[in-house]
Amino acid sequence: MISLRPVLNVLGFLYVGLATAMLIPAMVDVAARNADWQAFVMSALITGLIGLLLSVAVGGALTDGLDIRQTFILTTLSWLTLPAFGALPFLWLGVGYADAVFEAVSGFTTTGSTVLSGLDSLPPGLLVWRSLMQWMGGVGIVVMAIVLLPFLRIGGMQLFQSESSDRSEKIVARSVELIRLFGITYLFLTFVCVLAFLLTGMTVFDAINHAMATISTGGYSTHDASFAYFTNPAAGWVAVTFMLTGALPFVLIIQALRGRPLVLWNDPQVRALLGLVVLTSLAVTVYLGAALEMNFSEALLASTFNIVSIITTTGFAMGDYTTWGPPVVGLALLLTFVGGCTGSTSGGIKIFRFLVFFGTVRAHVRRMVRPNRVMSEQYANTRLTPELSFSVLAFLVVYMGSVGTITLALSGFGLDIVTALSAAATAISNVGPGLGPIIGPSGNFAPLPDGAKWILSFAMLMGRLELFTVLVLLDPDFWSR
Amino acid sequence: MISLRPVLNVLGFLYVGLATAMLIPAMVDVAARNADWQAFVMSALITGLIGLLLSVAVGGALTDGLDIRQTFILTTLSWLTLPAFGALPFLWLGVGYADAVFEAVSGFTTTGSTVLSGLDSLPPGLLVWRSLMQWMGGVGIVVMAIVLLPFLRIGGMQLFQSESSDRSEKIVARSVELIRLFGITYLFLTFVCVLAFLLTGMTVFDAINHAMATISTGGYSTHDASFAYFTNPAAGWVAVTFMLTGALPFVLIIQALRGRPLVLWNDPQVRALLGLVVLTSLAVTVYLGAALEMNFSEALLASTFNIVSIITTTGFAMGDYTTWGPPVVGLALLLTFVGGCTGSTSGGIKIFRFLVFFGTVRAHVRRMVRPNRVMSEQYANTRLTPELSFSVLAFLVVYMGSVGTITLALSGFGLDIVTALSAAATAISNVGPGLGPIIGPSGNFAPLPDGAKWILSFAMLMGRLELFTVLVLLDPDFWSR
Repeated sequence: MISLRPVLNVLGFLYVGLATAMLIPAMVDVAARNADWQAFVMSALITGLIGLLLSVAVGGALTDGLDIRQTFILTTLSWLTLPAFGALPFLWLGVGYADAVFEAVSGFTTTGSTVLSGLDSLPPGLLVWRSLMQWMGGVGIVVMAIVLLPFLRIGGMQLFQSESSDRSEKIVARSVELIRLFGITYLFLTFVCVLAFLLTGMTVFDAINHAMATISTGGYSTHDASFAYFTNPAAGWVAVTFMLTGALPFVLIIQALRGRPLVLWNDPQVRALLGLVVLTSLAVTVYLGAALEMNFSEALLASTFNIVSIITTTGFAMGDYTTWGPPVVGLALLLTFVGGCTGSTSGGIKIFRFLVFFGTVRAHVRRMVRPNRVMSEQYANTRLTPELSFSVLAFLVVYMGSVGTITLALSGFGLDIVTALSAAATAISNVGPGLGPIIGPSGNFAPLPDGAKWILSFAMLMGRLELFTVLVLLDPDFWSR
Repeated sequence: MISLRPVLNVLGFLYVGLATAMLIPAMVDVAARNADWQAFVMSALITGLIGLLLSVAVGGALTDGLDIRQTFILTTLSWLTLPAFGALPFLWLGVGYADAVFEAVSGFTTTGSTVLSGLDSLPPGLLVWRSLMQWMGGVGIVVMAIVLLPFLRIGGMQLFQSESSDRSEKIVARSVELIRLFGITYLFLTFVCVLAFLLTGMTVFDAINHAMATISTGGYSTHDASFAYFTNPAAGWVAVTFMLTGALPFVLIIQALRGRPLVLWNDPQVRALLGLVVLTSLAVTVYLGAALEMNFSEALLASTFNIVSIITTTGFAMGDYTTWGPPVVGLALLLTFVGGCTGSTSGGIKIFRFLVFFGTVRAHVRRMVRPNRVMSEQYANTRLTPELSFSVLAFLVVYMGSVGTITLALSGFGLDIVTALSAAATAISNVGPGLGPIIGPSGNFAPLPDGAKWILSFAMLMGRLELFTVLVLLDPDFWSR
């Protein structure tokens, strides 16, 4: 039997933290004299009570740390149950089960797909709660990507094993120290982002909410029009800057802030990400100028903003780019899969896996021609083991297979193929908007049948857990001795 | 330098064979008193002359056999140049370059996508030439899959290395013997298929043409309505039987015909293929009965026919199944990727790669949980080497990546996302019809811009050459010493 006591201990701690966070929207609503504060206080009470009970029931169980199987269970249970509690305020306010869970999962996984509309007139507490879920989800993702996934060797993540994530049993003690370090950096970046938004003329409320949804590459806005609401182009460029920041490896951001900015430039993931952004943004800018006769500065902002929003898996929109013609739609669908750098808040396949894949396939092709040649592939300064290349390839295939399976399941609920496929892709990649008239950048996930919403909630979690964390638990072999 | 003399020698031999085949539609047109016979005779003269010149120029160069690099070049050049010569009759008859090449490539690769319409009133020679290209393409595919690809170790095909395809230098001598054996079996199966079609009431002309397009899993029909033209359900069931036959491993068919039918049933690919066909056909039958209130026997034939047509990558249609609702459209898109068994005339990813993939990923997931456990995966009675599992995964990723790249390229020519994606998938998988109003089962590829047709011709060849044969040649390293 696997002992769940240390797992429940950590979960209890997380629930208490979540309950505390729920008091923030409560206070906002109290300040705004809005009766919704009760929803948040009640949800906080339930969440906090369950957290405390868990902690008391299994108190002190953490002294031995977690083994591999316990870490898998903890990771999955955290991402399953935190959104469940996060959905409580929505339920309290009369949102249906499927919608409430969808919105909370989309929040915590920093996907940004929404079933709510009329955002501009929603009570402020609810809007803050949406942004806050994304902001907290962002911390959780970075911690998971740096502490847990390398330890679990998910999809080639062992490449990022370091002294902070080696396969020792002392993982939890180090986690606490890491969480503190990342938390401070994350808070600092959010603060800078708020200031920058304020300088562009945003209200304090909008600046804080959008900063939380930007740095976490989340994408929840306080306006139905998303970033098209802000007429000052500077707001768009600030968002571009901080979406990209949110998609960079946080370990490198910390080093850069400590006076070594070159570590960012020397990282292959960062170079490839920026190269891709510049290349595709310029291409779309030229296209917009030629095909739609947009002027240069307008086209540059619109294309860069939306492309960065997709690649970093943020999901803000500035206008409906799906009306720009088939080339942009095709590009948007493909870029949905890319994702940012590993160890960031972004989702998707992630840049390093593409880099490993290209190197691996080139070596493979060469071995086909000259079977006796010894080739060694490298990533940064690390030699790639066959096991690592294999992990990355397996991840890529399972990723595409999952998108296919989810697409088929959504088709079963009557979704047309564009909606089904783009919904599957945007959910697993944690991007936000899909394609087509229903769930496109100017649309909304509300009209989908409840079954489709449950499937998409599952898909967002699958993607956020990098698929294998869930697959491992689905194998009966996991649970045997 | 790579010596191209033995390559050109084989090509010359193939061109002479192709020229001879062109005389068949010429004779049909002569018999039908149709002036088109000149197009075929002139094309035969050009093709035959070039073939003879090549043979004479490099005569006797084959004594040493072919090495790996020469085999790669031969394989690619055959599939590039035979359709080019095959397009000559179309050019002669006034079809444009892009259309002529598209039609010939679609023929030889047994894809079955067409740019021609008004088939029912086309001259008989042209219709015979279309069927004949598919029939010859079918032989070429089986020979390539059994003789060449295992030798080249494409996408895990080394699993099918046998005494007939070991890595010796004597590959050509054995090829000739193999080609004879498969040729006889293929001819026999075609003959049986013609007889069966005749018994269902088809005309001799239709029976011969459809038999050639069925056993090769090609899909060219002599009627715009494809199989919906034939009102006798028996014609549909005969087609189902022979499409499936065309998707079985030919080596096993030969053994079965020699009195060992159980080898077919014991093969994991065959079981999985038949299981998938039965499962999906029954599911769609039930769906058609429930959602569209079709009666059982009608629904069973319509669903089985179209599903078998897609999975075997034949591409015949019986009615427009894309009007059956989103679940069927989603299923059709996914099944487009599956393909039949290795060593058959079908395209797609092929069943054995899915089987290897599932086994490989399960073992991978288990190693993630228990890193020290030794797991050995098997396929049939062969132990899977890590190299083989790796080849299969690399193939799958490159397959999906190619579909994505072709989709993006087609979007660049203004194709909407459904047309672009389904065209890319159907071309690389050599299936035939796509989705949407333009290239769906009741549509036609003619309205696409020429650029898109060139891209799709390339995609059909890429798919037929199992991607890596082309990738290898694109690597500059291939051409160095």
